[in-house]
Amino acid sequence: MANYVFVAKSLDGFIATKDSSTDWLTYPNPTKTDYGYNSFVSKIDAILMGRKSYEQILMSNKPYPYTKPVFVLSNTLKTVPINLSDSLEIVSGPIPEIVKQLSERGYNNIYIDGASTIQSFLKEGLIYEMVITTVPIILGQGISLFGNLGTEIKFEHTKATRHENGLITCEYKKVQSAVTA
Amino acid sequence: MANYVFVAKSLDGFIATKDSSTDWLTYPNPTKTDYGYNSFVSKIDAILMGRKSYEQILMSNKPYPYTKPVFVLSNTLKTVPINLSDSLEIVSGPIPEIVKQLSERGYNNIYIDGASTIQSFLKEGLIYEMVITTVPIILGQGISLFGNLGTEIKFEHTKATRHENGLITCEYKKVQSAVTA
Repeated sequence: MANYVFVAKSLDGFIATKDSSTDWLTYPNPTKTDYGYNSFVSKIDAILMGRKSYEQILMSNKPYPYTKPVFVLSNTLKTVPINLSDSLEIVSGPIPEIVKQLSERGYNNIYIDGASTIQSFLKEGLIYEMVITTVPIILGQGISLFGNLGTEIKFEHTKATRHENGLITCEYKKVQSAVTA
Repeated sequence: MANYVFVAKSLDGFIATKDSSTDWLTYPNPTKTDYGYNSFVSKIDAILMGRKSYEQILMSNKPYPYTKPVFVLSNTLKTVPINLSDSLEIVSGPIPEIVKQLSERGYNNIYIDGASTIQSFLKEGLIYEMVITTVPIILGQGISLFGNLGTEIKFEHTKATRHENGLITCEYKKVQSAVTA
């Protein structure tokens, strides 16, 4: 059972501008690399995202992007659009409990998305691996990927991929703490 | 004339913990790479740092690390330790003015250090190139490299070096804005 992050951030650690725009992510990409997205998605069973990320997707003019089951973490949402009701579900409650329930239903490798959801999972020690692409721009303000988490977490740097257009994707795996007997 | 940054940061963008500790920078380094530091220093004429970074160096138990002239940006400091008076100087005033004065004295390639000094230079559009090594740790809080700069700055990613121990150093060059006639 493992939870994964796959995200692009600015040099100063933002995943979106203050008004949730991700236009700055559009970077010259002549060879049309997907930055490893399809390979990443092939190993996950489901996506779990925060309410804000979900609303952002619904409000965008782009086609619904997911082919795997999506769970939206929200204490306020109750219903989902009828055309998505087969593949989308609202979940709420303590994060370890949600993870346990999803695992019991066979969802063991979960793509965690949305800054505050990622931060909640990090605080619980429940992020196993992160795939992060950095776009060489300082945004100056925005929605911070890690925020001020308040807790220290060690990762090891497992892989770096330099794409044709100069962007770099780095992969980080959580260092497992030694268990004291 | 160009100003450079050479710095290590955590995954979440901090260059030191809240109490200015950089112990977390100590990362296994069996091949004793200098992460490009000596090559970087060979191309700069002088170092310009903030008061806090300067005081941090004076208070540390390590030998004074610089062989090039050092300028400390401070409105409050007036004197420097006598043993450093040949190589260290206090400067104050508006940043473009300081840069102009240093250039007139032959210091054209300057290593800018210390988070708030780096941020001040970025705001003025006066950072030409940044060499950034990321240590795979989330610190959770600390002294932020970029802070919330409030202004957008585009860089291009010019080089990435993967060191034997898995750390990656990325180099970024500022994208020059088109000048409108």
